[in-house]
Amino acid sequence: MFQSFKEIADPSKGRPRVAQLRKELNKRKLAAFLVPHADEHQNEYLPPGAERLSWLTGFTGSAGMAIVGIRSAALFVDGRYTLQAPGQVDGRVFDVLQIPGNKPADWLKVTLKKGDALGYDPRLHTIRAIERMQKTANEAGLRMVPQDENLVDAIWKDRPAAPRKAVSLHPLKYAGELAARKIASVQKQLRNANADCVVITLPESIAWLVNIRGQDVPHTPLPLSFAIIPKKGKPELFIAPEKLAATVRKALARDVKLCPPAKMAPALAAIGKAKGKVQLDPETASQWFANQLEQAGAEIVHGTDPCLALKARKNKTEIAGTRAAHQRDGVAMCRFLAWLDAKAPSGKLDEISAAKKLESFRRQTGELKEISFDTISGAGANGAIVHYRVSESSNAQLIPGTLYLVDSGAQYLDGTTDITRTVSLGAPTGDMRRHFTLVLKGHIGLAAARFPKGTRGVDLDPLARSPLWNAGHDFDHGTGHGVGSYLSVHEGPQSISKRGMVALEPGMIISNEPGYYLEGHYGIRIENLVLVTRARKVKGGDRPMMGFETLTLAPIDRRLIDPALLTRDELKWLNAYHARVLKEISPELSVRDRKWLEQATIPMEAK
Amino acid sequence: MFQSFKEIADPSKGRPRVAQLRKELNKRKLAAFLVPHADEHQNEYLPPGAERLSWLTGFTGSAGMAIVGIRSAALFVDGRYTLQAPGQVDGRVFDVLQIPGNKPADWLKVTLKKGDALGYDPRLHTIRAIERMQKTANEAGLRMVPQDENLVDAIWKDRPAAPRKAVSLHPLKYAGELAARKIASVQKQLRNANADCVVITLPESIAWLVNIRGQDVPHTPLPLSFAIIPKKGKPELFIAPEKLAATVRKALARDVKLCPPAKMAPALAAIGKAKGKVQLDPETASQWFANQLEQAGAEIVHGTDPCLALKARKNKTEIAGTRAAHQRDGVAMCRFLAWLDAKAPSGKLDEISAAKKLESFRRQTGELKEISFDTISGAGANGAIVHYRVSESSNAQLIPGTLYLVDSGAQYLDGTTDITRTVSLGAPTGDMRRHFTLVLKGHIGLAAARFPKGTRGVDLDPLARSPLWNAGHDFDHGTGHGVGSYLSVHEGPQSISKRGMVALEPGMIISNEPGYYLEGHYGIRIENLVLVTRARKVKGGDRPMMGFETLTLAPIDRRLIDPALLTRDELKWLNAYHARVLKEISPELSVRDRKWLEQATIPMEAK
Repeated sequence: MFQSFKEIADPSKGRPRVAQLRKELNKRKLAAFLVPHADEHQNEYLPPGAERLSWLTGFTGSAGMAIVGIRSAALFVDGRYTLQAPGQVDGRVFDVLQIPGNKPADWLKVTLKKGDALGYDPRLHTIRAIERMQKTANEAGLRMVPQDENLVDAIWKDRPAAPRKAVSLHPLKYAGELAARKIASVQKQLRNANADCVVITLPESIAWLVNIRGQDVPHTPLPLSFAIIPKKGKPELFIAPEKLAATVRKALARDVKLCPPAKMAPALAAIGKAKGKVQLDPETASQWFANQLEQAGAEIVHGTDPCLALKARKNKTEIAGTRAAHQRDGVAMCRFLAWLDAKAPSGKLDEISAAKKLESFRRQTGELKEISFDTISGAGANGAIVHYRVSESSNAQLIPGTLYLVDSGAQYLDGTTDITRTVSLGAPTGDMRRHFTLVLKGHIGLAAARFPKGTRGVDLDPLARSPLWNAGHDFDHGTGHGVGSYLSVHEGPQSISKRGMVALEPGMIISNEPGYYLEGHYGIRIENLVLVTRARKVKGGDRPMMGFETLTLAPIDRRLIDPALLTRDELKWLNAYHARVLKEISPELSVRDRKWLEQATIPMEAK
Repeated sequence: MFQSFKEIADPSKGRPRVAQLRKELNKRKLAAFLVPHADEHQNEYLPPGAERLSWLTGFTGSAGMAIVGIRSAALFVDGRYTLQAPGQVDGRVFDVLQIPGNKPADWLKVTLKKGDALGYDPRLHTIRAIERMQKTANEAGLRMVPQDENLVDAIWKDRPAAPRKAVSLHPLKYAGELAARKIASVQKQLRNANADCVVITLPESIAWLVNIRGQDVPHTPLPLSFAIIPKKGKPELFIAPEKLAATVRKALARDVKLCPPAKMAPALAAIGKAKGKVQLDPETASQWFANQLEQAGAEIVHGTDPCLALKARKNKTEIAGTRAAHQRDGVAMCRFLAWLDAKAPSGKLDEISAAKKLESFRRQTGELKEISFDTISGAGANGAIVHYRVSESSNAQLIPGTLYLVDSGAQYLDGTTDITRTVSLGAPTGDMRRHFTLVLKGHIGLAAARFPKGTRGVDLDPLARSPLWNAGHDFDHGTGHGVGSYLSVHEGPQSISKRGMVALEPGMIISNEPGYYLEGHYGIRIENLVLVTRARKVKGGDRPMMGFETLTLAPIDRRLIDPALLTRDELKWLNAYHARVLKEISPELSVRDRKWLEQATIPMEAK
């Protein structure tokens, strides 16, 4: 099993650990210290030694920040974790506050007083985050004091060491483009921007750039590393030499200069000494890099990590790979859904046994490298917890008459998948069908959309929401995130959300996942991955339009669809999608599963 | 007539005037000079003496900028004016370039050389615009050199003097709130922002704040003025004393200190001397104010003009007023549309006679103070020119078998209107009906939308476009702009467009005007004004939703609607809207016009 269902953290540890942390505050004359969910790469999934937030508070969500002051402490989480967080932390130690309604800035203004020192670890905060925090500090008269040693590390005696897992080469048959060509693209951009070099701090950017993969963090197959790419000549790759087998080392050495991580600070100092003009991404690089470079005399120019846009636009090989991966994953999903329909009526399944079974079907493909995130296996009311993680203590039964939401994904060498299905266990209520059909209308509104060049995610987000809005509903998360190619399941720069200001471009992969959540009762989400397609002429139209090709292949629960609420065009989309699922998946199924799939994809008619 | 159909400018004047301007460039050792369409208030409609761009180039559009260099000159216009501008200027003198594809910054980089001086009039550019221009200048190694005297003024011998039209008081029965209360609201915001005062440079803000109206510019009933509002005590209002009758002066003196405009510069100097902290809106205030204040020693804090958001949320009195204004305007529109249907078959109408007739119907209400902008009266292919202004030379016949687009509005004491109707002159083609119905679907998508608190214009814009996108079409303008209360027909901060980042709030008035333009053939636009309504519970919903109340009352041409392309809900909206128009407008009509309206509002059925 890739997934563990153990309780990771224990709310009862919060009190003594915060007490220890406060001793460190006093020792260093700090009024408060920031503990973000972050490592020095701004990774989504952290290596164990960077899980400072959950170690200190008990909160295991993928985003959040604690601020520990001398007398009070707060944990800030977003809407996805409003239900989960209070159950994971000791409410007497931490006030759990939801952003953006509650802002760390306001808490600091109220809690600290003029002249107080606010400590932070410059390795864990982006340049932009520190800029914002500095503004708050200025307004409140606080001093921001960077700490050489992280205060949590000072008290976390058995903090795990940095991971040193083996690096593998990502072959051209999956990557589709040689590292040398990718490096040349980045270097061309550098010369256009008049920069001497760029410092890359995102390991996924580096993994993409030099066609390597790793196992240093859960779920995302990346090796921890940094890189400096000069405008001409070989990039320097800072990576622990223990991770590189001789063959890997040899292959890499063709394109980059391999350096141990300890050489990073001296390399930055050398750039500064040469008065180099360094490009740095203020949204992803940590303040530590800015400090090092500035102190050494370098000129910093802000610019987005040049790998991001290149990586987001998948090439032909990657697109062929993701189609194959989704076909393979669809077979596993269909086997799982057929199994679920057969077993669920017994009432004996639970969230963990279902998640285990799903992972086992994916393993049976023989190609599974990892799951792309911990499966969200939410029965009944747990389905309404948007980023629910099932553990042994939360594990609920799958009870007939309720809904079951399962959001999961796989890492295959040829592609990364992410799919959510909501399944009716037995006969659904009218409300369940109505809510599900509204979500489906939003899903189809996006899946079938055509849109002109230049359209950003923000311009498509409302298409997934308006059927819900019209009925007095909404959901408190984005509609879609970018997805990598055997890499991160959440990648930028594109997103379909209120903050999606990047234009969608052909080759981008993005999720389509509207939802509806009825707290205490059930959650509904329908998620497929889609590929942005080239602008094509529309019959009768005068402007070419882009669109989406749906990649994910698994039936959408017909029992939950009220066809009377769908328009003709929506029904047409649904039936065409189901016909495609049947055609592409059924040849790989057993006779029994094929029969199930045939039933599950029968065309629906307007009543 | 408020509207004039004369040729305003003459392309042949461009060459000698540019030659004269180049002499001024040489005299001052400038490599180029900026000539924006702007006055010192950033008014939309300029007093005649500020029409420097059209005087110099011939271009009469509402937005644009010329840059005149020693050897070359360019006119930058946006997509609305791509068709119009080349016809108005001498193409051998000015390169007409469309933003944002072509950028002034790029032109400057290519045309000027390192060390060159770029002249500009700091009164005519906002702080933000100069900031951006300075960035370009830095990149290209240019020097930005502010000019005390505008170079166009130096050569424009008969430039009209500043207008001095009488100011009127805007009574409480229309304004709904006393000036003293509005001033107190602004002052409260100032104290919260810790500022000593704010300088207001937008005359519409001042007109709203102290409940006055004027006639200094066409179409928008505002008096030119500036104001300084201290955090406590009476604001200073800088306004030409000749504009104020004794009664007006006396009434105003209760709330403000009246000062002649010449006292403005000394007042700014005094703030600087006292080391005052001054709020200034970088998006609307000119660089001249920043220069004056900074040179005098003031501390400038950037902040949006505090009147904007307050003015945008109409109070109950203003809302009642706008409903009455729209009912009155709807009567005039229905009489016009009935007249058009009766007269157009003769083929003898033209764009000017139609526009004149429409204005005469509005005059017959007995309440018309002004038209809110020059009527866009576009027959056939002229309808495809988004901001078409008909003149004697462009005046086209209304020919049976074509479409006629008329976009117009009125200024009444109780409200400002803005409506577009597209009318079929005789039998429309299938394409015309299809295109019109797609635009109507977008219009209804927005009009019927419900949306949660916090929704911005950008989040609604796609609802008006997606039916067009799906058919391979789009339109190159925003979907909606804010509208004032007997004030500007284009007001911020809200807009429904790709740039609409301000949340919509109850009481805001905004236009709903999707379109479709087939160059050389016809233009289609359907525009109603809508009022943002409070969040209300939706039956069966769990979140209260805001929505729109359509204010405009006039039938949408049934001959152009293909009901087979509408959903049941869209048909329902259309029929309900037409029933409301009939009910609210018909009592005011003659028997003949009422018969026409009954025909024009017959419910449509799906086929």
